[in-house]
Amino acid sequence: MNQSPAVALRDVSLRDGLQSIARTVPTAAKIQWLHGLHDAGLRQAEVGSFVPARLLPQLADTADVVRAAKVLPGLRVTVLVPNLRGALAALEAGADALLMPISASAAHSLANLRRTREEALAELARIRAARDAAGSACRIEVGISTAFGCTLQGAVPQGEVLWLLQAARDAGAEEIGLADTVGFATPGQVERLFDAGRRAVGELLDTAHFHDTRGLGAANAYAAWRCGVRRFDASAAGIGGCPHAPGASGNVATEDLAWMFDAMGAPTGVRLPALLALRERIAQWLPGEPLHGAIWRAGAPRTLQAAGAEA
Amino acid sequence: MNQSPAVALRDVSLRDGLQSIARTVPTAAKIQWLHGLHDAGLRQAEVGSFVPARLLPQLADTADVVRAAKVLPGLRVTVLVPNLRGALAALEAGADALLMPISASAAHSLANLRRTREEALAELARIRAARDAAGSACRIEVGISTAFGCTLQGAVPQGEVLWLLQAARDAGAEEIGLADTVGFATPGQVERLFDAGRRAVGELLDTAHFHDTRGLGAANAYAAWRCGVRRFDASAAGIGGCPHAPGASGNVATEDLAWMFDAMGAPTGVRLPALLALRERIAQWLPGEPLHGAIWRAGAPRTLQAAGAEA
Repeated sequence: MNQSPAVALRDVSLRDGLQSIARTVPTAAKIQWLHGLHDAGLRQAEVGSFVPARLLPQLADTADVVRAAKVLPGLRVTVLVPNLRGALAALEAGADALLMPISASAAHSLANLRRTREEALAELARIRAARDAAGSACRIEVGISTAFGCTLQGAVPQGEVLWLLQAARDAGAEEIGLADTVGFATPGQVERLFDAGRRAVGELLDTAHFHDTRGLGAANAYAAWRCGVRRFDASAAGIGGCPHAPGASGNVATEDLAWMFDAMGAPTGVRLPALLALRERIAQWLPGEPLHGAIWRAGAPRTLQAAGAEA
Repeated sequence: MNQSPAVALRDVSLRDGLQSIARTVPTAAKIQWLHGLHDAGLRQAEVGSFVPARLLPQLADTADVVRAAKVLPGLRVTVLVPNLRGALAALEAGADALLMPISASAAHSLANLRRTREEALAELARIRAARDAAGSACRIEVGISTAFGCTLQGAVPQGEVLWLLQAARDAGAEEIGLADTVGFATPGQVERLFDAGRRAVGELLDTAHFHDTRGLGAANAYAAWRCGVRRFDASAAGIGGCPHAPGASGNVATEDLAWMFDAMGAPTGVRLPALLALRERIAQWLPGEPLHGAIWRAGAPRTLQAAGAEA
């Protein structure tokens, strides 16, 4: 196990979580939500998407949320952008990082993003050029979605993921993550793919994004951590759902990863009680929506103050 | 990663599961339950405990269940025994293996089993002598409970677990497992303890028993698998609960481990659809009882026939 054990959790509930929920949460509540994350010790958050409001009305206030997030000390604010137009909006709003998804599955890329992977890489290069021309410090991140499989085509060959990693690097990505968009990944597969990926592009591949659709979110996060990955996307209260699996849970819950990593001596900086309190408020902002996750039931062991320190 | 990847799942729902549920399931239903496990491909099961019926009336029919289980081809039948008296009953009933729990936590040993760990080891030696004197082929297994922590005393020093492993070997144990009785374990801790344990006593330490109380059952199983462990206790439908954490789940669900290991190319021999069908019947046998687990919601990916083969 290499480098420092410490982990950065990036909460994506305000983006990946809310985009899967039909209800639109008022901007004022989103800002309280953000403050709750910050109060709990989160220092990275993905707060919205710059996509057309007709596609995702839930995220139409992303520019306002970014501005509110920038007030919070030490918070790194990421937004998702599908294309150059969204990237220009992210630069204008003052985001610290923009995340462009590129699908590893050829079928998923065409069906969901209506472009080939090569077209997406060309758009990434244009985004990088625009960022450079603007003299902005905004970081450019690529999220390789369906990296562990796809509901449309099933398995995604490892060689195609490795090709995309290198192509994204060559097109200007400064950070790259692998995403298990549909909850197919297993920990054995995660170790193989992250090991191979980091051999290919080194620490440029620094982020893992897992869904808990089939109960392996935490196992997959542990497997990626073993490979040296130290940034994990997660969603407060496990919100998100998956349109392809009714009733199934969405992103792995932020509080579950905070519990796991902190208890095993990989500090996250997160205060679990504050995050569990935020979970209660999220339940109020989203009445009737199913929440997910595990640690909220039993809580951290009261008699085990420092499992990591003891180990 | 050493040796064959293949995994043996031992279903403990009829013992660890049912002992935590107040309702007594009729013997006839337990036998259907056993057939359901066998039909789904399970070839190891812990089917009851030889404890006084006044303590666990739910398991008072253990001798009958053992006899019914012995009819099923290729099924290895384990029973839990707390002491010599129970062991003699297990030998008489014809169990293939008897499992004696010994608590790694000094406090838990006194509070729950009313004996010191040294007294438990002396009883183990008497059980081994009785088995040898009877000329029985019944295997003697020790389950080291609270190996990863205890609700009473908190952390359990690794050195005490290693001492117990060696002492159990010296007292005659032929197989040993480590159990996370209260759901404290994290995957980092699991790797450290199983690695150290297997350095101490080798492949005698061959079993892992995890609860999913805090959502890390699958992650912990993966961590133990990485250490070379190839037998895992699990409970169909995740039944069991935990008396110290109301609403929390119990043993990791058999179907969840079957999904994880098979999907990552570590064959279990289990047919997941048959196990999910059994889950429906368990819901009927235990009306009103909470079931747990994750894979039952979304099911295995329909487009992913052979993730393990592809990897």
